[in-house]
Amino acid sequence: MSDDLLVKNVRPMAGADVDILVTGGIIRRLTRGIEAPAGASVVDGQHGIVLPAFVDGHIHLDKTYWGLPWRPHEAGPTVRERIENERRLRRLLDLKIDVQVERLARQAISRGTLHIRNHVDIDTEIGLRNFQGVMAARDRLKDAVSIQVVAFPQSGVVTRPGTAELLDRAVKEGAHLIGGIDPAGLDQDPKGQLDIVFGIAGRYGVGIDIHLHDGGALGAFQMRLIAERTRALGLAGKVSISHAFCLGQLDESELGPMLDLLVDNRIAIMTHGPGDRPVPPLARLRAAGVTVFSGSDAIRDAWTPFGTADMLERAMLLAWRNGFRTDELLHATLDVVTRGGARVLGLEGYGLDVGCRADFVVVSGETLAELVVARPTRAWVISGGRVVARDGECIL
Amino acid sequence: MSDDLLVKNVRPMAGADVDILVTGGIIRRLTRGIEAPAGASVVDGQHGIVLPAFVDGHIHLDKTYWGLPWRPHEAGPTVRERIENERRLRRLLDLKIDVQVERLARQAISRGTLHIRNHVDIDTEIGLRNFQGVMAARDRLKDAVSIQVVAFPQSGVVTRPGTAELLDRAVKEGAHLIGGIDPAGLDQDPKGQLDIVFGIAGRYGVGIDIHLHDGGALGAFQMRLIAERTRALGLAGKVSISHAFCLGQLDESELGPMLDLLVDNRIAIMTHGPGDRPVPPLARLRAAGVTVFSGSDAIRDAWTPFGTADMLERAMLLAWRNGFRTDELLHATLDVVTRGGARVLGLEGYGLDVGCRADFVVVSGETLAELVVARPTRAWVISGGRVVARDGECIL
Repeated sequence: MSDDLLVKNVRPMAGADVDILVTGGIIRRLTRGIEAPAGASVVDGQHGIVLPAFVDGHIHLDKTYWGLPWRPHEAGPTVRERIENERRLRRLLDLKIDVQVERLARQAISRGTLHIRNHVDIDTEIGLRNFQGVMAARDRLKDAVSIQVVAFPQSGVVTRPGTAELLDRAVKEGAHLIGGIDPAGLDQDPKGQLDIVFGIAGRYGVGIDIHLHDGGALGAFQMRLIAERTRALGLAGKVSISHAFCLGQLDESELGPMLDLLVDNRIAIMTHGPGDRPVPPLARLRAAGVTVFSGSDAIRDAWTPFGTADMLERAMLLAWRNGFRTDELLHATLDVVTRGGARVLGLEGYGLDVGCRADFVVVSGETLAELVVARPTRAWVISGGRVVARDGECIL
Repeated sequence: MSDDLLVKNVRPMAGADVDILVTGGIIRRLTRGIEAPAGASVVDGQHGIVLPAFVDGHIHLDKTYWGLPWRPHEAGPTVRERIENERRLRRLLDLKIDVQVERLARQAISRGTLHIRNHVDIDTEIGLRNFQGVMAARDRLKDAVSIQVVAFPQSGVVTRPGTAELLDRAVKEGAHLIGGIDPAGLDQDPKGQLDIVFGIAGRYGVGIDIHLHDGGALGAFQMRLIAERTRALGLAGKVSISHAFCLGQLDESELGPMLDLLVDNRIAIMTHGPGDRPVPPLARLRAAGVTVFSGSDAIRDAWTPFGTADMLERAMLLAWRNGFRTDELLHATLDVVTRGGARVLGLEGYGLDVGCRADFVVVSGETLAELVVARPTRAWVISGGRVVARDGECIL
């Protein structure tokens, strides 16, 4: 057998039937009636729809209890209580981080996700242990899934001396971005945390992705601080804000200028379509020109029992929380979980065109919009021209 | 073969393994190590969890395009625009109502729903055609699923003369309840619509289930009108309010007295956990003693492209929209989609005790809470002791 793959009878983006020929991990031809080269593997797509691989732009692989016995949620409702509870459980459970990362990454692969941005916990208690676990698993899985790593100060930066140095070290040792979290709400010092985070980004030339749960005016205040620093340091296009619940709370007089600020500084917004927090208005953001991406966020961990690592389900939740009903808006959610994420992660060769990397998903369905509401089992997941999942099961 | 059924190695409500012996459609024994009677069918439950059958307490089977080619959503955002668009499509598509009802009911069965309350459209254009279609399908499916029918004036009552008489006739011809819809927001005459609806209920001794989308103070005003009439006519325990978005908008000074009013008049609340409307606070309602039930609402019809008729998914959506994370609260959502609905629908012999009707679902999983977040395929669905679905497929 060669490494060639011929996927027959599939409909890219729900269009007309074609065959897709992959050689060397790249889509080489995309037309009807391709003859299989000698030795090629052949897959019959049975008129399934082809989408480019999903991009999970915000996940916490290193936190998850995936694959372990059920653990009832027991944390209090505040971010601070959840952090403290997680730290307690971390000591108690002593998880093998690389094993957990790999378990959940395989689940994501089974759902068609082949590109991930992972926020890895770094604090003065665990040091770089989670980071090293993620990097080890990332290396093992690198032929199937790409994992971008954000050095994430889950327990705060300013309020936890020593964290800044650890973040610096993580980036020096290969983390792709520097993270942050509620500079005001958690660290009580927005200027202090942002100076540290942007300082590290400047020092190593990496991007930034900041968790911002703080709502209303407090959230908006910090978004402006982030935008100012992005402009001052010439980081346009390299900064993301995750959650940004406050965008779902601003009135029109504030929202318009805020979106302008995001567009001017090419700051991307990650929303997972939260169930019980305000939702950034997805259609409005996209119409204004803001790049929106999405992710699973926490999955079956100390923060939440929820989550399936399924970005098609995530598209449904985004649509449902935003009141989307038309095909056009349902398609927008698919764009968010595919091309939106690819743009933010800077993926090269992403897409379904000839010359793109052969990372795609085949699912049974009639239209793109139907995929969002019905979320069918992924029939085939192809990574770099190799079958990595079949009928919802990862076969790595 | 006899009609006896022995389900081996299952865990009722995620408890210890037992066998369940069913004869004559009734659960007769529920203990370990039951020997199969001669001629009995035997099912190996493989340590799956057993739940009582799901109750879909609010669905619109007669509206659905389930099983038809994908139809992009095209209605405007208001209730009135959606009603007019639906009427237009009804003329255009000329659906076979009984066929559509049966299609979607089979989907519901495949997901473990065996008891349904259906709001059937009645207006001056279609008359009782949808009602008759539902009644015909109901009759065909009656051995597998129970369907309670609400005569529902989708297009309004006061504003559409002739509707009151049709509703009256539907109830006379066998509808089990009389419905209503936004007496203020749609009919512009809360007193007028409620007098008609309660008049029919009084005349025939049937229950009432009113759609109330109107929000805030306008919704609360109508809830008080409904409660007054419930008390005056001695209808406590026979009235439900569906949606009641306003309960998710009232401040504490209004919410407490409103819940007291609901409890005093034993008015049940149906919430489907809406994605982009305020959510009645489920835990608060239950703690106050209000009976809460749930349903799929519209499914793939002129109102919405969403919906799967899966009440386990509905439990997830309820939990997620209410910010539920603990096992206790996740269990509450399961109670809402099973026993809550059974109480409101007045189902006799419902449950998993000896003597109950053998209507239950077997799913693979570790804990009850896990079922809510993971929503596994229904391995077996048993209706009156007969297997009606297997591995997610209706086999009627």
